[in-house]
Amino acid sequence: MAHHQSARLDRSFAALSDATRRGVLERLGRGDASITDLAARFEMTLTGMKKHVSLLEEAGLVITKKVGRVRTCKLGPRRLEDETAWIERYRQLWDARFDALDELVQTLTNKEGQ
Amino acid sequence: MAHHQSARLDRSFAALSDATRRGVLERLGRGDASITDLAARFEMTLTGMKKHVSLLEEAGLVITKKVGRVRTCKLGPRRLEDETAWIERYRQLWDARFDALDELVQTLTNKEGQ
Repeated sequence: MAHHQSARLDRSFAALSDATRRGVLERLGRGDASITDLAARFEMTLTGMKKHVSLLEEAGLVITKKVGRVRTCKLGPRRLEDETAWIERYRQLWDARFDALDELVQTLTNKEGQ
Repeated sequence: MAHHQSARLDRSFAALSDATRRGVLERLGRGDASITDLAARFEMTLTGMKKHVSLLEEAGLVITKKVGRVRTCKLGPRRLEDETAWIERYRQLWDARFDALDELVQTLTNKEGQ
């Protein structure tokens, strides 16, 4: 995997490692919202919410736009394709690993029965 | 989502947010390995590797077992089901959101053409 791709996975998985940030993504999935709306919805200070939104923005998961005094947030262009692909590959390795262990146990059990 | 489930997602996404830790999972998917093996493979001190393995262990992604002086690591029982489910739900929201925007643009474009 190229270095920049890997760095992007670092940022997106880190962005997803917090319940509030996952909640913000789900909320924005139902419609755009201002930082003030989000802070109120998640019972958080504006400063706290700005930090969460910055991390989501750096990960490419959220885009913000300031119009007048209001900063509106919406979902970014990333659909978590690479993250899904990584997890899917891991699950295949995991399955193969545990299938191999099952087979080994089966072989040993059969030998014992002989 | 229940609180303990959410805390588990926090831990697993945080565990996945580092290229070395993702590499360790991929390596263990091909076979068990000692901390010493992993440290050498990823060109890291034993102390550094122990920290990474601890985070993976806390997330339920790795199990370690000490036999004599060697601590062996293997993949844990978690197959990232909840993480996959969360990302999948997010992608559905994302698709619905962008479909809605497409429709809006289409409607506006048609109106302009009238």
